[in-house]
Amino acid sequence: MSSIAFWIIPIAGIAAVIFAIWLARDVLSRDKGPQAMQDVGGTILEGANAFIKRQYSTIGILAVVGTFVVAAIIAFVDTEEVAETPIYGVELGLLTGFAFLVGAIASMAAGIIGMSVSVRANVPTAAAARTSLVDAVQVAMRGGAVSGFLVVALSLLGVWGIFAVYETLFDDVSYAVAPFLIVGFGFGASFVALFAQLGGGIYTKAADVGADLVGKVEKGIPEDDPRNAGVVADLVGDNVGDCAGRGADLFESTAAENIGAMILGSAIFLIAQSAGWPHPEAWIFFPLVVRAFGLFATIAAFWFVRGREDEDPMNILNRGYWATTILSVVGMLIVSLVLLDTGTFQGNYDIPTWVWFFLCGVVGLVTSVAFVYITQYYTAGSWRPVKDIAEASKTGPATNIIAGTAVGFETTFVTALVIGVALITSFWLGDQAGIIAEDGRNVGGVFGTAVATMGMLMTTAYVLAMDTFGPITDNAGGIAEFSKAEGSAREITDKLDAVGNTTKALTKGFAIASASLAAFLLFQAYIDKVNVALLARDLPIMETVNLANVSVFVAAFIAAMLVFVFSALAIRAVGNAAGAIIVEVRRQFREMPGIMDYTQRPDYSRVVDITTRSALRQMIPPGVVAIVTPVAVGIILGYEAVAGLLMVGTIVGVLMATYLNNSGGAWDNAKKYIEAGNLSDDQGNVLGKGSEAHAAAVVGDTVGDPFKDTAGPSLHVLVKLLATLTLVFAPLFIR
Amino acid sequence: MSSIAFWIIPIAGIAAVIFAIWLARDVLSRDKGPQAMQDVGGTILEGANAFIKRQYSTIGILAVVGTFVVAAIIAFVDTEEVAETPIYGVELGLLTGFAFLVGAIASMAAGIIGMSVSVRANVPTAAAARTSLVDAVQVAMRGGAVSGFLVVALSLLGVWGIFAVYETLFDDVSYAVAPFLIVGFGFGASFVALFAQLGGGIYTKAADVGADLVGKVEKGIPEDDPRNAGVVADLVGDNVGDCAGRGADLFESTAAENIGAMILGSAIFLIAQSAGWPHPEAWIFFPLVVRAFGLFATIAAFWFVRGREDEDPMNILNRGYWATTILSVVGMLIVSLVLLDTGTFQGNYDIPTWVWFFLCGVVGLVTSVAFVYITQYYTAGSWRPVKDIAEASKTGPATNIIAGTAVGFETTFVTALVIGVALITSFWLGDQAGIIAEDGRNVGGVFGTAVATMGMLMTTAYVLAMDTFGPITDNAGGIAEFSKAEGSAREITDKLDAVGNTTKALTKGFAIASASLAAFLLFQAYIDKVNVALLARDLPIMETVNLANVSVFVAAFIAAMLVFVFSALAIRAVGNAAGAIIVEVRRQFREMPGIMDYTQRPDYSRVVDITTRSALRQMIPPGVVAIVTPVAVGIILGYEAVAGLLMVGTIVGVLMATYLNNSGGAWDNAKKYIEAGNLSDDQGNVLGKGSEAHAAAVVGDTVGDPFKDTAGPSLHVLVKLLATLTLVFAPLFIR
Repeated sequence: MSSIAFWIIPIAGIAAVIFAIWLARDVLSRDKGPQAMQDVGGTILEGANAFIKRQYSTIGILAVVGTFVVAAIIAFVDTEEVAETPIYGVELGLLTGFAFLVGAIASMAAGIIGMSVSVRANVPTAAAARTSLVDAVQVAMRGGAVSGFLVVALSLLGVWGIFAVYETLFDDVSYAVAPFLIVGFGFGASFVALFAQLGGGIYTKAADVGADLVGKVEKGIPEDDPRNAGVVADLVGDNVGDCAGRGADLFESTAAENIGAMILGSAIFLIAQSAGWPHPEAWIFFPLVVRAFGLFATIAAFWFVRGREDEDPMNILNRGYWATTILSVVGMLIVSLVLLDTGTFQGNYDIPTWVWFFLCGVVGLVTSVAFVYITQYYTAGSWRPVKDIAEASKTGPATNIIAGTAVGFETTFVTALVIGVALITSFWLGDQAGIIAEDGRNVGGVFGTAVATMGMLMTTAYVLAMDTFGPITDNAGGIAEFSKAEGSAREITDKLDAVGNTTKALTKGFAIASASLAAFLLFQAYIDKVNVALLARDLPIMETVNLANVSVFVAAFIAAMLVFVFSALAIRAVGNAAGAIIVEVRRQFREMPGIMDYTQRPDYSRVVDITTRSALRQMIPPGVVAIVTPVAVGIILGYEAVAGLLMVGTIVGVLMATYLNNSGGAWDNAKKYIEAGNLSDDQGNVLGKGSEAHAAAVVGDTVGDPFKDTAGPSLHVLVKLLATLTLVFAPLFIR
Repeated sequence: MSSIAFWIIPIAGIAAVIFAIWLARDVLSRDKGPQAMQDVGGTILEGANAFIKRQYSTIGILAVVGTFVVAAIIAFVDTEEVAETPIYGVELGLLTGFAFLVGAIASMAAGIIGMSVSVRANVPTAAAARTSLVDAVQVAMRGGAVSGFLVVALSLLGVWGIFAVYETLFDDVSYAVAPFLIVGFGFGASFVALFAQLGGGIYTKAADVGADLVGKVEKGIPEDDPRNAGVVADLVGDNVGDCAGRGADLFESTAAENIGAMILGSAIFLIAQSAGWPHPEAWIFFPLVVRAFGLFATIAAFWFVRGREDEDPMNILNRGYWATTILSVVGMLIVSLVLLDTGTFQGNYDIPTWVWFFLCGVVGLVTSVAFVYITQYYTAGSWRPVKDIAEASKTGPATNIIAGTAVGFETTFVTALVIGVALITSFWLGDQAGIIAEDGRNVGGVFGTAVATMGMLMTTAYVLAMDTFGPITDNAGGIAEFSKAEGSAREITDKLDAVGNTTKALTKGFAIASASLAAFLLFQAYIDKVNVALLARDLPIMETVNLANVSVFVAAFIAAMLVFVFSALAIRAVGNAAGAIIVEVRRQFREMPGIMDYTQRPDYSRVVDITTRSALRQMIPPGVVAIVTPVAVGIILGYEAVAGLLMVGTIVGVLMATYLNNSGGAWDNAKKYIEAGNLSDDQGNVLGKGSEAHAAAVVGDTVGDPFKDTAGPSLHVLVKLLATLTLVFAPLFIR
């Protein structure tokens, strides 16, 4: 039976890939509308291809270099890490390097394919919007789902595949050891995610700022005007950040969570084995099976993405989200019941073990729902925070900025509270299950937090589909505008675009919560791994990470500082990269005088390529800081200090990202709130577009752009990178 | 000999008070210039008195209530805390409450007297500025020094007095126990500091914003125009934040550092006693003697505050600062040599114990110098950061804000680095001294960090004098303007005002660094105190603060969140409080039509009083959050979690304060940089006052105001409040 469970993992992965292919074919075979639309779509596609080529060839080279560096370090520095197996030295280096490469390739593949489909789904969405809102929602959601399913499926198949290969290659002991060998996969994924998100985030905002500055300010032509050579770079940028960037981000979350949970599961495997519980190995691949059922739930939920023409499109998306969540609860119930079988009662209250862990999974799912709604409260126009910012805009840009900053700071309150409650509740539930290790420690609590993380991430594919829905509808709106589409096209795409803004924001909330839970898991895994290495060297194990230790305290200080400095570098990079696009767009206007009277076509791809290259150059400083700092701290201050760095880096990174994302989202929507005519002065006159209040809100929106689209999302990735990087290099830090 | 050392403490304190009185008499006896100046000065004085009356009567009531609450909690909750002495229960409650009250009163007294002198020193400074720059510098510096000396002297006399009383009251054992009884003093000081800084910070910016909005924007009259009823509130505000607020802040630093170091010293006292070292009790009052020599050094240094008329006034101040630092090194050498005598070599390299600790003190003094210069680099107009912000202003307010945010984030880098290096170096040096406790632990390292903190704080009185120099010269400028003073008055006060901006900024850097070092000390003291209580209850002691423990991790999360939320509340409070002053100034313009043609005098005091009351109301939410959060976490999650909260709260609070203070300072100076005509466009035309770049820079300056004058400084206080509060209530958290 447990072998059925084992094979369900690849079956789910492959089913999700097939479903994604079916969705992609469905979207691509739809009506593409009039030639004008297709022309615009073609131009965006051309730009997107230029971006993908430049971006991923660079990241690919970095990944190959990374593979060799990782393999070499592990091969030659650590020759005794895994004490109980014959795997060490060069062999371990090769295995880790291989896993790193697979992780990197899978992450890149998910990004490239997902983005390729999403930049093709925009035209069918625009075409559908001419006649039907529901059709347009479905096309955009299906286009987005390709990316969502691929991310989760490739992450699942990758971890499972490496696990299956390694487990076949080595003897029985490797059941407990194999998860440690897969950590390279998570690091590979993180490595790619860092550059995909950083480079993408810098690109998207540089293109935005650069195109606006030359077009709107200098030349006085409208936004999205086809004469602006930078406008395609801007439209491509929408896909870059939210589709490719967030995809890499959540790929990393799922991979890291899988690996962290498997490492913790392998501790329980040893307990289960010696206690003679049925199918002990199930504790190790339990997280993968949970993910598999999450995929099934999401596939089924797509049937519920339907509604009436006159409905708020957010309701249609929410219907599918709730279906995913409820089906996931059912899936979690089945998997817990079948796999987490100890044969006898272990813990308190005579309640079976699986029940406690099932409840942990439910905690995770509830957390996910909570984050989706909390983010809506803070960033959507219908509630107090955004209204406050809009009101503050009446007295100018300064008060707008101050109000947005205060709102952004405030949002950390619920974030910390929900994460704290989720961790403590799931720890308590798991603790009750009573999984007692040989040394008398109850490891159920930590595993409970792992199960909560799994529960939370079951809905990842759906959330990512909603996220990519954002850039697709955003593009569809641009295409409708560009091609002067008939009918209700622009009206419907505007509605969808507003919904897309919300879904993009809530995905960030989801990504933050998952990052903090995953990092807590990986932190526990890090301790396990360090202790394996310490035992192998006959050193006393690390029982605690003691903040009262001066080196841990200093490392924690450095971790918090790293978050601030990394954010500064990311924000600064946008301005620097924007310089390149400004020069190029100006040059085209100057040297191609036919552009202004429509007789010459601007060279859109060249702008995309130049912006991409510039963004890639600008991502070097923050990228280097993110990778070098933890390694340097580890080498200088030791393994316990790194643990402090990891935890405090996670905490501060998560809260800073919350601040940056939510203040940015709230500023954006405060501007939209004013544009929609919801703000009035004391005499009741509407202060809309063109008012001073609107100008002030535009300042806030511009400030928020690099916050919410560059620095904030890059911090999600940083948090997980810290965790996977330290996990891989743990042996380096032991002196 | 050690009794000479003991009596040197009150002698230094009293000498400093006498010197402060002499300085005050000197300043107040100087030429007050023409009647017009004295009139303006009188108006400010009247406003300041209205502020002091309202502010300190409220804080006084809070302090009395606080005394009873603290005494009651300690009396009835904890009946067995101090195991080795007969002091517990009601007696302990009374002693703690008494110490709390003395701390609160001393802090308030320092604030009230310091501010009273500084609002009287502005007129003589303006008068002196008519003829001589050096005279004006000396008057302003001496006026500021009254506050500086009183703060340090009252803190020193308070701690010493309570120690002397308690030590006389109880038997010999109390040498080791008395420091624990003084913790109430630190909490009392923190309690007052929180409200003085929060209320003052909110007041000063609300007055600034409110006065500008009605006067400049609505009525179109210039800044500092006497017809604006809010203008005096604004001038009073300068003194409130930088003199009274920062005074309370550093009073708290010195008190907390004294107590923390004495608690650590009392551990060494026990070692010294059993090892038979000479005068073991010297280890306990060593920190107080160091502070005493710091006062002597500062008094002597005032002789060096002199220079040439054509000199940069910053040089004159720096001359005194360097004199203080060098004399402090000498003082540290003498005190270490005489008091830290173990009779034999204890540690490594055959180097006497006192040498290691003397070097720790030097590390602290160097850290202090480093912070003074780092802050200048980031916030003064002559270097890259401020120039970058000014450049970014060319493309509008949004890029100005983005650049300032990036600079502010960046400044955390050196802050963390310098604090990290100082801690690790002083820990290492102290560790070499080799002070081995009964249980085999080397306690020299932690004491080394304590000595570094002492070294750093030796220059406090001088730094505070430079800080208060800021509002005095700022006021002098306003008075010169108001009274249309003849001669070079306005020119000289402008120069001094620019220097004052720098000194205000560097004091914040100094306060941050001292806050983080003091908090690290108090954290160690907290562990000591909890362990005393645990031992008394026959419970296992807390050996580590384990971040891998889920409740510690969650507490750390809450601590980081507390910093964000507290900042949000402080920032938001400014806007809310400004509402009150706006209404009142508008009312006066409306109901007193003679104001506009100078036939009626606005009721300045009423505006001050209304603003003060409003600020006091607005400080309730952040104040409550700051006090309730650590207590709630302690009661719910326990004593180890509180330790995590304390450490991570310190780290994040210090870095967030660094960001807020420095971005605010940099924005302010970017505006000044543009106003001074240093910015040009591509064609070389100067972009000065009235340009779009200047308008953008004004937005940044306005955003920075509540950052640097309300939220940032309040965070310094929060960090220390967390430390003293948890230290006092430690027994509450043990279940």
